[in-house]
Amino acid sequence: MSNMEESRELLSGIQCPSDVRALDSKQLQALAEELRQTIIRQVSGSGGHLAPSLGVVELTLALYKAYDFEQDKIVWDVGHQAYAHKLLTGRADRFSSLRQLDGISGFPRMAESEYDHFGVGHSSTSISAALGMATARDLAGEDHDVVAVIGDGSMTAGLAFEGLNQAGGMGRKMVVVLNDNEMSISKNVGALSSFLSRKLSAPLLQRLKDDVENWVANVPGIGGDLATYVKRSGDSLKSFFTPGMLFEAFQFTYVGPIDGHNIDEMTKVFEQVRRINKPVLVHVLTKKGKGYEPAENNPTYFHGVGRFEPETGLARKFPGAAYPSYTEIFGNMLCRIADRDEKVVAITAAMPEGTGTSCFREQHPERFVDVGICEQHAVTYAAGLASQGFKPAVAIYSTFLQRSYDQVIHDVCLQNLNVKLFLDRGGLVGEDGATHHGAFDMSYLRHIPNLVFMAPKDEAELARMMVTAFELDGPVAVRYPRGTGVGADVDPEPEVIPVGQGETLRTGRDALVITLGSRVYPCMEAALELAEEGLEATVFNARFIKPLPEEMLRELVADHDSVLIVEENALPGGFGSAVLEFLSDNALLGGRTVRRLGLPDAFVEHGTQKQLRSFVGIDKQGIKNALKEMVGS
Amino acid sequence: MSNMEESRELLSGIQCPSDVRALDSKQLQALAEELRQTIIRQVSGSGGHLAPSLGVVELTLALYKAYDFEQDKIVWDVGHQAYAHKLLTGRADRFSSLRQLDGISGFPRMAESEYDHFGVGHSSTSISAALGMATARDLAGEDHDVVAVIGDGSMTAGLAFEGLNQAGGMGRKMVVVLNDNEMSISKNVGALSSFLSRKLSAPLLQRLKDDVENWVANVPGIGGDLATYVKRSGDSLKSFFTPGMLFEAFQFTYVGPIDGHNIDEMTKVFEQVRRINKPVLVHVLTKKGKGYEPAENNPTYFHGVGRFEPETGLARKFPGAAYPSYTEIFGNMLCRIADRDEKVVAITAAMPEGTGTSCFREQHPERFVDVGICEQHAVTYAAGLASQGFKPAVAIYSTFLQRSYDQVIHDVCLQNLNVKLFLDRGGLVGEDGATHHGAFDMSYLRHIPNLVFMAPKDEAELARMMVTAFELDGPVAVRYPRGTGVGADVDPEPEVIPVGQGETLRTGRDALVITLGSRVYPCMEAALELAEEGLEATVFNARFIKPLPEEMLRELVADHDSVLIVEENALPGGFGSAVLEFLSDNALLGGRTVRRLGLPDAFVEHGTQKQLRSFVGIDKQGIKNALKEMVGS
Repeated sequence: MSNMEESRELLSGIQCPSDVRALDSKQLQALAEELRQTIIRQVSGSGGHLAPSLGVVELTLALYKAYDFEQDKIVWDVGHQAYAHKLLTGRADRFSSLRQLDGISGFPRMAESEYDHFGVGHSSTSISAALGMATARDLAGEDHDVVAVIGDGSMTAGLAFEGLNQAGGMGRKMVVVLNDNEMSISKNVGALSSFLSRKLSAPLLQRLKDDVENWVANVPGIGGDLATYVKRSGDSLKSFFTPGMLFEAFQFTYVGPIDGHNIDEMTKVFEQVRRINKPVLVHVLTKKGKGYEPAENNPTYFHGVGRFEPETGLARKFPGAAYPSYTEIFGNMLCRIADRDEKVVAITAAMPEGTGTSCFREQHPERFVDVGICEQHAVTYAAGLASQGFKPAVAIYSTFLQRSYDQVIHDVCLQNLNVKLFLDRGGLVGEDGATHHGAFDMSYLRHIPNLVFMAPKDEAELARMMVTAFELDGPVAVRYPRGTGVGADVDPEPEVIPVGQGETLRTGRDALVITLGSRVYPCMEAALELAEEGLEATVFNARFIKPLPEEMLRELVADHDSVLIVEENALPGGFGSAVLEFLSDNALLGGRTVRRLGLPDAFVEHGTQKQLRSFVGIDKQGIKNALKEMVGS
Repeated sequence: MSNMEESRELLSGIQCPSDVRALDSKQLQALAEELRQTIIRQVSGSGGHLAPSLGVVELTLALYKAYDFEQDKIVWDVGHQAYAHKLLTGRADRFSSLRQLDGISGFPRMAESEYDHFGVGHSSTSISAALGMATARDLAGEDHDVVAVIGDGSMTAGLAFEGLNQAGGMGRKMVVVLNDNEMSISKNVGALSSFLSRKLSAPLLQRLKDDVENWVANVPGIGGDLATYVKRSGDSLKSFFTPGMLFEAFQFTYVGPIDGHNIDEMTKVFEQVRRINKPVLVHVLTKKGKGYEPAENNPTYFHGVGRFEPETGLARKFPGAAYPSYTEIFGNMLCRIADRDEKVVAITAAMPEGTGTSCFREQHPERFVDVGICEQHAVTYAAGLASQGFKPAVAIYSTFLQRSYDQVIHDVCLQNLNVKLFLDRGGLVGEDGATHHGAFDMSYLRHIPNLVFMAPKDEAELARMMVTAFELDGPVAVRYPRGTGVGADVDPEPEVIPVGQGETLRTGRDALVITLGSRVYPCMEAALELAEEGLEATVFNARFIKPLPEEMLRELVADHDSVLIVEENALPGGFGSAVLEFLSDNALLGGRTVRRLGLPDAFVEHGTQKQLRSFVGIDKQGIKNALKEMVGS
């Protein structure tokens, strides 16, 4: 029996945590290899979060060996590293449906498995959730363990710090496993990142002792030559630190660092850690992409990846659709705007590649800032820059800007500061599913005073809206979809769009379609096809969620009895809701039939963008159906 | 000339920062006393943030002496400690208008003074904003200083940590002054709070050295008896820490702790700190309420206080209006619910008194959790509890829940977890102004799937809604206003309200008023007065923002041509918007006149609740006017 065959037998025999506990060291080793090959094979065909999941194969097995997850609880931070966990908990046979419509999710979900103890998707929730679970255990008089597994990248978010601080203060038994691969999605940033990467070693301990001696010898009373003191003791103090000391400050017992690819060593440590009745942090060193050379060499690319050839790691080419993505258009245009305006600064929260700002980093390094996974800070930091006359562009996914909602209100818009928010992945994102759809931005931003808020119909309009955003003095948001547009050529000198000016794309007597952003082309296509059937609809691209193109709407609505509003955002409080408010407040609704298409008041699951848009009825066919129903044809 | 007379002369001669810089040590001392007396006199007559402002009088003067705030920038975290700053920057003569309509704000505001370099109100923004300013300075090639003043309470929020981490990583010149009074509003919580309070002292330095020696002697290799190792080294490590070491880990140069009431010492330190070209943290020890005995003895009560007798510190009694506040009703009812249901847990974010949960802390201490100023963590922690079958009640101000928007979506509602959100201070809060109004909660919560969202008309209905919230399985939010209600008796056994059931309070042929929450009584009063003039209006209390009482609305709307919707929330995306969506989606608008009253699409400033409600037109008179206009009488 070859190695591979033995491995296959192992995984197929595992349905629940106790099956893993029954394996011996050699079998666990073989299972690690099989898990790794299964993950590479699947992700190469479907896309997904490869490098994070490869990095924690051994860690997952050690946790499963040391803990009993029938009783014990585990929270995987973000959850993009949980493929091995999924494979070990009865989902191996469905693993080929990963991230596909009606298939298993790319993230742990309570509804999917009893072993997904807490659903995740956004970063840095695990310590807080685990502490809640530990509190529940103690209140219920139970005694199982609670484990949070969090990457060092996720540690930069304030939420993780809040959880750590309270967990240490409370002193309840729990384990935080710090999965330290020195990366978030890209290379980590911030003071702690360079600090964490200094591995604890025996020689360091001696150095510590020497440093303290020097430090004690040199410290003067306050009022001495402070500058000299500070220099001397500061230099000394910095080399003085170890990661353990930081976590001890948070009143965690620190254990580590340990080799995150040595199952036996980790298992031994976890088994001893189980005996400690207080918060423990286990510092585990892993390599992102471990065991797959292309991913080890380029972990950022392979963090979340499309389909690729498993032998080479090269992306599988799709026929056609060679347009640049909205993300690329945005990144290039931002560089061009910054070429001419030295007040433009680009800010990303740990996603230079994902937001298209990596080219900005190369072309304008001094004006590029990656703040790490810190969406709140990104926005308040931008407000600070804007208060001094700069024009910061915060490039962020729609779903992650949810973290900055208060900062957009309180630090940016209340002060009417010149911050530009660029929301990538507005609308349905596809395979990442419910945690990642940009479903709510029109609803959560449009009620904020002072904000101007746009959504482009194609690449050329994105460029125009970007130029417009920087032309305006005050807060502006622009949201655009994930993926490619229609291939519209970007004007070399994009024209500014007057605030609140939409455009009528075609005129027809039977109905008025009001839309914007990603839904403009489908609305046009629907209208063109219906015209062949004799149904003539006007299509209006509003461009602005806020302020609405009020005068144009007023005139257009006056000419039509049937009005269809189409958006790729939640229907409650979204764009259609804004149009309704305007029409009602101005007594323009009388006698008209108005219908709205958009995302339902429910969380939309994963699938391709095309499938999901069809499912919720906002694709060409859904629009055609709605129009036909409205005009009774 | 008496001391007091000399002092008065000092303050009246100060209009800008350079006037303070011209004073000598003795004059600064006298000015401190005058500032303190002025603040006590004013706040005793108007209410305001007394204890925080008294605590930083000397710190403020030392900063003004050492820095030049014509060039240098300062950000006051939260800003409730900035009264001395306001008095020193040309606002002494308007100080009597503090927090009053058209008067000066209780917080720094860029629009109010060129010396308010950044507007504040919510906690923990100062480091991020200051880092933005420092970045702007460096990009612009300037060389002034940037100072953030932040309390140790504000340090517990994740945003502060995010700012600290990036500031240390960037290494730009800036100063963070840690104003350590060992409190937020109440006593501080969390691991770092006990840690910070351990003051650095010379004997400690020797202890450090001994500890390191012990530690080095005892550390085994991994694989030895870890439990013993952990116990030994852990105990040793904990006493090993100093506040300085924590901040050095963030790559800040640490200076302190220094006496925050010694102007000369602080000035000397700041003058030396100015020479350090990197991030510096100056740790200043202050006493909250310093110099006013009642406030020193009870800093929580005097954090933000109503009018009081300056001689005694006792609250000034108002005639009448002796009803308990909504906050008290909530706190008492939550205790009663928890008496019967052991799964109920109360969570507050540093505001046991403000949210009325301090009685819960006494009656159910094991189920009471103060997480500190950590709104994000509060909600995710609650989700963790709920995932294990508990029923956490998160008691929080509407304006602060803005910080948890993503957690409410992602951790609570997406997982349909049994978390109950109680939003105090929903609607206009009055004197705290634009940063503190609960203006947006209906807009930012109602588009979240799975959430049930209510607002009570009075105290009795609040109790019923609370009972209803705990009866339901899933996420529920209840929002209620700041202050007292109408004095409605709370039923000893409040009845559960069926989900989506409103109530018709009176019936009239001429118009339908749809409202809920704080606006129900004013609508009833308006209707009763108009009835005397012959205008008969139906008044409907919807109770539910989500789900709407659809069937009842359908029937009522069918009977009326004029519909007025009244809410104490922003009009965009709010309750009226939800009603419009329902009416439009169900073709119930045809031929009807619909009008909405609510908060405008603009930030509302400070003043009394009564003044502001009148100003925006949602008081009884505003409602009467709107109804009369609609029905043309």
